[in-house]
Amino acid sequence: MKRRVTLKDVAKAAGFHVSTVSRALDPNNSHLITAEVAQRIRDVAEKLGYRQNAAAAALRTSRTRMVGVLVPDITNPIFPPIIRGVEDSLRRHGYLSIIGNTDGDPKRESSLVSMLQDRGVDGFIIASVELEDKAVVSLVEDGIAVVTVNRRVDNPAVSSVSNDEGEGIRRVLTHLVSLGHERIAHIAGSQRFSTGANRYRSFLEHREALRLPADPELVVFSNMYNELEGERCVEELLARGRRFTAIVCANDRLAVGAIEALVRRGLKCPDNVSVTGFNDMPMVDRLRPPLTTVRIGQYNVGYQAGELLAEMIGTGQREASHVVLPVDLVIRGSTRALTTALPEN
Amino acid sequence: MKRRVTLKDVAKAAGFHVSTVSRALDPNNSHLITAEVAQRIRDVAEKLGYRQNAAAAALRTSRTRMVGVLVPDITNPIFPPIIRGVEDSLRRHGYLSIIGNTDGDPKRESSLVSMLQDRGVDGFIIASVELEDKAVVSLVEDGIAVVTVNRRVDNPAVSSVSNDEGEGIRRVLTHLVSLGHERIAHIAGSQRFSTGANRYRSFLEHREALRLPADPELVVFSNMYNELEGERCVEELLARGRRFTAIVCANDRLAVGAIEALVRRGLKCPDNVSVTGFNDMPMVDRLRPPLTTVRIGQYNVGYQAGELLAEMIGTGQREASHVVLPVDLVIRGSTRALTTALPEN
Repeated sequence: MKRRVTLKDVAKAAGFHVSTVSRALDPNNSHLITAEVAQRIRDVAEKLGYRQNAAAAALRTSRTRMVGVLVPDITNPIFPPIIRGVEDSLRRHGYLSIIGNTDGDPKRESSLVSMLQDRGVDGFIIASVELEDKAVVSLVEDGIAVVTVNRRVDNPAVSSVSNDEGEGIRRVLTHLVSLGHERIAHIAGSQRFSTGANRYRSFLEHREALRLPADPELVVFSNMYNELEGERCVEELLARGRRFTAIVCANDRLAVGAIEALVRRGLKCPDNVSVTGFNDMPMVDRLRPPLTTVRIGQYNVGYQAGELLAEMIGTGQREASHVVLPVDLVIRGSTRALTTALPEN
Repeated sequence: MKRRVTLKDVAKAAGFHVSTVSRALDPNNSHLITAEVAQRIRDVAEKLGYRQNAAAAALRTSRTRMVGVLVPDITNPIFPPIIRGVEDSLRRHGYLSIIGNTDGDPKRESSLVSMLQDRGVDGFIIASVELEDKAVVSLVEDGIAVVTVNRRVDNPAVSSVSNDEGEGIRRVLTHLVSLGHERIAHIAGSQRFSTGANRYRSFLEHREALRLPADPELVVFSNMYNELEGERCVEELLARGRRFTAIVCANDRLAVGAIEALVRRGLKCPDNVSVTGFNDMPMVDRLRPPLTTVRIGQYNVGYQAGELLAEMIGTGQREASHVVLPVDLVIRGSTRALTTALPEN
């Protein structure tokens, strides 16, 4: 490997003292020498391929301009657009993003946090939090800049950027009611996550406000946000033998699995049962039927989290902020009116 | 923020000299003192929350144990499983991954490479390369450890882990021929990428070997791997007025767009036209019709790239390796036999 070009090499080639060269190449100090000299030195440095030693700079400033970004699993389609938003925002502020997958495993999460702290990251963006998340709360208590994204911790001291879950479920329920549905089931998300808990709470609240039958047998709790759990929950619903004409799923992957299980049992979506999702993840508009769902601004929620973190790092401000972004209902083919005469299922 | 616990603090609390503490906490030097003392010091260090200063360690060892990972766009569904494979492999070797999206823009790529070099990364994994990629070749010429993943550079000095594109297309073509297809069109990928170029070359080669009509009008070149380009290419094919009963698409997203454009023109897939993809990206098994495609080991190609890079960094070895991973044909609903009597299209 080629030897690294040092400040000394630049000084020798440019014919200036090392301290002058150091000033010329430091944006905070280059005003101390004449613009002409600074430019001459920068030209020489560029010609030689001089590169600032980031480790040395990090020791000097105790800033690495790197941020740790933790997600449960990057292959879950909801996360890539969020990460992309985070990365675009942070890069604008000169930060790079180190990615880690936690698999929702607290041990893996804390080992990653530890590796990232060893590298001296300036802050964290965490999409993998649970409502009770001691590791994250303890980072914040240590004065580390942390923003949770998409999900929240049940502790107001931890800053967050999330989506208006309550409004999303309210829009879904009013849409189904407008189509004539009354017996509406809910496949809830895991109650360990703010998303699952908030969507479930909103379902109960608006079911009551809309004077729909409050049958507890119409709610099934999933353990994970995936297609298999959606299938399992539909089987459980059907096994209970209660009538329902629509299912509100806590996210898109649960909805995709739910529709598959219905089809397997000879029930058509939307002819026999309307199904809704949450997130509007990529490709759900291309399924048959295309999924009616709540669109969250995945990229935007990531971008805003990046902006908030950059501000916290830049200002040293640690007072918590909570940004809640608006959502939209996207009506597609998986929901339909009950009024049309249909064969009994 | 709490003051950082230093070596001095640990030394004071443990009652040993700083140099002894330093040895105890360095895996390469702890054999120089007794195991009992080393353990006692490690216990004190842990109790105080001592954390090695990575910037200082990086200066000492000129290793940061960080790797730059460049992809065109993390929101393209083929990349998350690749990144996940890279991350899992590298983490096993104690490396963290810094992610950057290049958007296929050489300027953005070189600015990212530069930011990553400033942070002193130990190597690069690059999924965003073009066949001619001066920036990447120049990294390798500078002795930097680089592995390209999924795609290759047209320069044998740059190590790569990629898929057996040629075999994939051969399997697709023999499958279509076994179903009775002869007039087979190709929506080729951009020829700037090894994937597009290799799949196209293989299409020509095996079309000839299988004695299929070699009509140049049956090939259309896409500019990007996305659904819109798939639609555009089908429109172009149809406008040429040549008969075809199947389309081999250079990737899944082109195939998804192609099927949409066919449907819009009143042509059904697979009834009137069979369509194949490449990659087996998430969700294509859930489309209607589910897509017949070539499955590449997305996670594995990433994992193997991580292993190769870790070895190059660890050994200092820079001789190029090229790993080509096997692929599978996955037959689903988007291809069907020509023999059944069908309405003329």
